[in-house]
Amino acid sequence: MGNSFILKGNICHTPRLGSLEIREHACIVCAEGTCRGIFDNISQIPEQYRALEVIDCGDGLVLPGMVDLHIHAPQYAFRGTGMDYELLKWLDRVTFPEEIRYADTGYAARAYEIFSNGLKKGATTRAVIFGTIHVRSTLILMDCMEKSGLISFVGKVNMDRHAPPELTEKSVSEAEADTRLFIEESRKRGYRRTKPIITPRFVPTCTGELMEALGRIRKEYDLPVQSHLSENPGEVELVAELEPEAAFYGDAYDRYGLFGREGNTVMAHGIYSTPEEMQRILDNGVWIAHCPASNMDLASGIAPVRRFLEKGIRVGLGTDVGGGFSDSIFRAVTDTIQVSNLYWRYIDRNAGPLKFAESLYLATKGGGAFFGKVGSFEDGYEFDAVVLDDSSLQSARPLTLGDRLERAVYLELDREGIVMKFAAGERIL
Amino acid sequence: MGNSFILKGNICHTPRLGSLEIREHACIVCAEGTCRGIFDNISQIPEQYRALEVIDCGDGLVLPGMVDLHIHAPQYAFRGTGMDYELLKWLDRVTFPEEIRYADTGYAARAYEIFSNGLKKGATTRAVIFGTIHVRSTLILMDCMEKSGLISFVGKVNMDRHAPPELTEKSVSEAEADTRLFIEESRKRGYRRTKPIITPRFVPTCTGELMEALGRIRKEYDLPVQSHLSENPGEVELVAELEPEAAFYGDAYDRYGLFGREGNTVMAHGIYSTPEEMQRILDNGVWIAHCPASNMDLASGIAPVRRFLEKGIRVGLGTDVGGGFSDSIFRAVTDTIQVSNLYWRYIDRNAGPLKFAESLYLATKGGGAFFGKVGSFEDGYEFDAVVLDDSSLQSARPLTLGDRLERAVYLELDREGIVMKFAAGERIL
Repeated sequence: MGNSFILKGNICHTPRLGSLEIREHACIVCAEGTCRGIFDNISQIPEQYRALEVIDCGDGLVLPGMVDLHIHAPQYAFRGTGMDYELLKWLDRVTFPEEIRYADTGYAARAYEIFSNGLKKGATTRAVIFGTIHVRSTLILMDCMEKSGLISFVGKVNMDRHAPPELTEKSVSEAEADTRLFIEESRKRGYRRTKPIITPRFVPTCTGELMEALGRIRKEYDLPVQSHLSENPGEVELVAELEPEAAFYGDAYDRYGLFGREGNTVMAHGIYSTPEEMQRILDNGVWIAHCPASNMDLASGIAPVRRFLEKGIRVGLGTDVGGGFSDSIFRAVTDTIQVSNLYWRYIDRNAGPLKFAESLYLATKGGGAFFGKVGSFEDGYEFDAVVLDDSSLQSARPLTLGDRLERAVYLELDREGIVMKFAAGERIL
Repeated sequence: MGNSFILKGNICHTPRLGSLEIREHACIVCAEGTCRGIFDNISQIPEQYRALEVIDCGDGLVLPGMVDLHIHAPQYAFRGTGMDYELLKWLDRVTFPEEIRYADTGYAARAYEIFSNGLKKGATTRAVIFGTIHVRSTLILMDCMEKSGLISFVGKVNMDRHAPPELTEKSVSEAEADTRLFIEESRKRGYRRTKPIITPRFVPTCTGELMEALGRIRKEYDLPVQSHLSENPGEVELVAELEPEAAFYGDAYDRYGLFGREGNTVMAHGIYSTPEEMQRILDNGVWIAHCPASNMDLASGIAPVRRFLEKGIRVGLGTDVGGGFSDSIFRAVTDTIQVSNLYWRYIDRNAGPLKFAESLYLATKGGGAFFGKVGSFEDGYEFDAVVLDDSSLQSARPLTLGDRLERAVYLELDREGIVMKFAAGERIL
């Protein structure tokens, strides 16, 4: 059997940007972890699958698993605290002091178990995760993620300037050796769900020499890359000072092979991306992880998501814990809509607000593409799903399935309404 | 005994705007529903109170009850659905069709029981509530609110233009008769916690004749007033067309005695209040109910809360369900901070972001003042409190009480962490 079954319920997904498909009391075939189509009833299922076990979700809502393209595991411990700062001050006063603690593997083990259990309980099935600069602690994070059942990329962070001494690599060669050790060790552990990702924290904390070394390693091991881009005006200015030869912020990564082209790359934010930077993002196939909560919390601004989408740029959503305080991608979906409304109102009247179906697409298929065929129930997609029981939400009013879906996401039913969860066909909850 | 006891726990409140007072494992005396001071331990309590029953909240966080200055009870049924509209379209397509249902008292009874149970479970202890134009259904709403234990003002809505026929008063004299009936009947029912409030929906749906009648009734019965103000550019334009003699939006209310001066008045929003309107708000002692979620959801904008506060205008928070989808004032606290960050970033660099302690003040003592001495644990204040158990939120990191409070509000622990709740000394939960 393996990960093969028929799931019956109210199937909701967004096969294309802006189009929501809802199939009442329908069946999805999952064969060896892969979707093999949606059918109105069992008699319509192709014969080779018709005898599979049926998992009946009753009147539950079945959604693709949520994809979190940007989250910092060590910051989970202080989420919802220290919220009254802007980016660079917040790093110094809140974030870096916490990340220093992860030199202690005992602390890391406790903290990362809480982190991975938190993600396991929610609607997220895939995540792209920052650790800290510490190799051993970041391997512990990978152990925890592997155990959680989620599928993730995890990165050992690299920094060699503008960081506290405890979080600064001793030399580029040591950083390189540590990154190789991290990659090799993570491969030795034979994870099925957890892969390494190259992680320069961001240009202000990475010298050109360090980025050059990371670019070499990336190429050698054929790994993806994650980092931050054009988040805050002060940060963008600092990058222009530190990297005068770069044409724009993203170019500072691109010069070292850390900005898409050959390997998948995800950059968080892009609020202050210039037209030139947007063009490079598009040309290089870089994903933007849009993190609306964090962008409000740190007073960073609002990313031009409508512009990204019109241009054809790949966009997914990120919670950016701890800049964002919530690990819920449901919340990121509604935050995305809210800030797009303000963007339209105050910044660009030609950039229409994002609609619910569009934002849900970003949270699923949009970010899912970073992992391959993920985030939809179309034939050939990996079977990532959450099943929600919304019966706790009483209503005097008759509600359509579309209403129930929208309400479940807005009211964050991922906190208490998840009854089943699958990643690549394996049941997590 | 009555409502007299000593409550022991971690006491958190904001006696002044911007100052958070936290007393670890301290005692509050509640005598006949009124706070009589905070004491470090029982031996310091004045002798006349020392023998009172002690309610020990252990390591729980004790906060003032939250005050919701603006919520629409009939819209609770569709909260989190129909979110892809701007104000005037949303009224026509989502809100009015639902409000029409409340002509049916059976429907109203079912819907308002769900509404009042929802508020009861949360952290809100006081609310200022819109019903519909229907007298009987709005009295049912008052019955439900009285039973909930919350303390509230409830209004029968008035509209006599620009609304569907089913929601339009047949004549001003009938509207006047209905409003009097509503007030008289609500008084006959002898509620202890639930009071009527004069409720013109907003200028676009109220003729001058109707507002004049409501002004007379207000004066005669000495009642407070609630309505909407300067929420959306299209609405503001419409008001200028409809009421050309009014100097500004708020003046259209003021001309009929519905804008503070003699009676308490709360106006939701004030996003587009001009300097003249702000001055009148200040001079007349009008409260602004700041509703950040609704203002994002309906693409209305961001209210200049920092400006209101600098000017000395009274401000509290509102959830504005169903423009806002959540009934949580904890969420309104953090939404307020987030939108103030964006206001600073994009609209006015001289209007500094609101800090956590400031926003919490608005949610408690700021809005509480509409009810009298409410929203603080100072001597003489009515004892409204919620007790939170945050032990479900694990952390590897040592947290201060301030961290725990901030985290509990950001992570909306009012959803599942409330272990006790009191309004004017009466235990609700």
